[in-house]
Amino acid sequence: MKFHGYFRSSAAHRVRIALNLKGIAPELAYVHLRKGEQRGGAYAALNPQALVPALEVDGPDGPAVIAQSMAILEYLEETHPAVPLLPRDPLGRARVRSLALICVADIHPLQNLRVLAKIRADHGVDEAGAFAWARHWNEVGLAACEASLSGHRDTGRFSHGDAPGLADCCLVPQVFSAKRFGVDLARFPAVTRIFDACQALPAFDLAQPSKQPDAEN
Amino acid sequence: MKFHGYFRSSAAHRVRIALNLKGIAPELAYVHLRKGEQRGGAYAALNPQALVPALEVDGPDGPAVIAQSMAILEYLEETHPAVPLLPRDPLGRARVRSLALICVADIHPLQNLRVLAKIRADHGVDEAGAFAWARHWNEVGLAACEASLSGHRDTGRFSHGDAPGLADCCLVPQVFSAKRFGVDLARFPAVTRIFDACQALPAFDLAQPSKQPDAEN
Repeated sequence: MKFHGYFRSSAAHRVRIALNLKGIAPELAYVHLRKGEQRGGAYAALNPQALVPALEVDGPDGPAVIAQSMAILEYLEETHPAVPLLPRDPLGRARVRSLALICVADIHPLQNLRVLAKIRADHGVDEAGAFAWARHWNEVGLAACEASLSGHRDTGRFSHGDAPGLADCCLVPQVFSAKRFGVDLARFPAVTRIFDACQALPAFDLAQPSKQPDAEN
Repeated sequence: MKFHGYFRSSAAHRVRIALNLKGIAPELAYVHLRKGEQRGGAYAALNPQALVPALEVDGPDGPAVIAQSMAILEYLEETHPAVPLLPRDPLGRARVRSLALICVADIHPLQNLRVLAKIRADHGVDEAGAFAWARHWNEVGLAACEASLSGHRDTGRFSHGDAPGLADCCLVPQVFSAKRFGVDLARFPAVTRIFDACQALPAFDLAQPSKQPDAEN
């Protein structure tokens, strides 16, 4: 198993947390997004979607590559179920996936590197303008997370109950992004409490961007 | 079971297709996105994420609401497995989810109503400018779909094999959006072929935006 990531990619960060929680240690490879390494050469041949992360696995019919963080997380859950990241009941699973998808489908796609680059190129805004755009969608999405977590009977020490799961794997990287873009997290007390509970665990702490071998300022 | 949708929402469209394929006929409710009905009143109380779609279900502990189309699709798959939308093998499931997520996480979030409204408000572009932005992300994402589908041994009559599945539930609504934004689909022959195969099926045809009771021009 070989994992292709980038230290600052939220999507790669989600998978790093899940790998750590499940005790899986794949070979690691790094794709430098700011240098555009994802768009050409060997990596684009490996993953035609030309984004990180990607997971290379040995399948029954030979080697295979899985793209998309959420597909990788579900694959890891199905093939390494010993430390579960989803509850057993269908409604609980739906709640966890729904929470995860706020980050995966509603926040992160609007603030990743290629989108901020296009905002700057198309509309002549500077970095501060691109950050304001990113901050807006982080605030809208984290408000949805807060409303879904706060006061819900299934929210526990973590997003769903008292063990970390797939929703936490997605929430924590999003909070790292939100901080980077200057979001005032005091507006989101349930999100902040869960983030702190997660980061107290080595599986989360060791997955954070600044602790990766390819980290830069 | 009660399904809250909007005729033009790609996310609601995905779920309509899955419901039709599985032969599930929930009570239907309509949320008028252009009038902002999702952001206030009874609907926002029901779904704190304030987006469509949402599925109300009777859970073992009482009524529950599932937000996020992908979470709803997975829930339907787990609770109504008779017509499967995912293959059985973990790698096949990962491929189908990965294909679906190109639309769910990489294209649609960048071109939905609230994002186009913000592009227009922040940057003073007109509808044509907003459509150009939407067209760009549709083209980038559909190129990723095409590269992942074309020539892959698991691509069949549909995205994965010869029966329609979860990837098709997500691809078809995206092609409807792409057409609306003026994307030249001739660049994507595998996508177009699969779209045509899907639309030949009543489950897909009857789910299209113009055939919904709340459809408008």
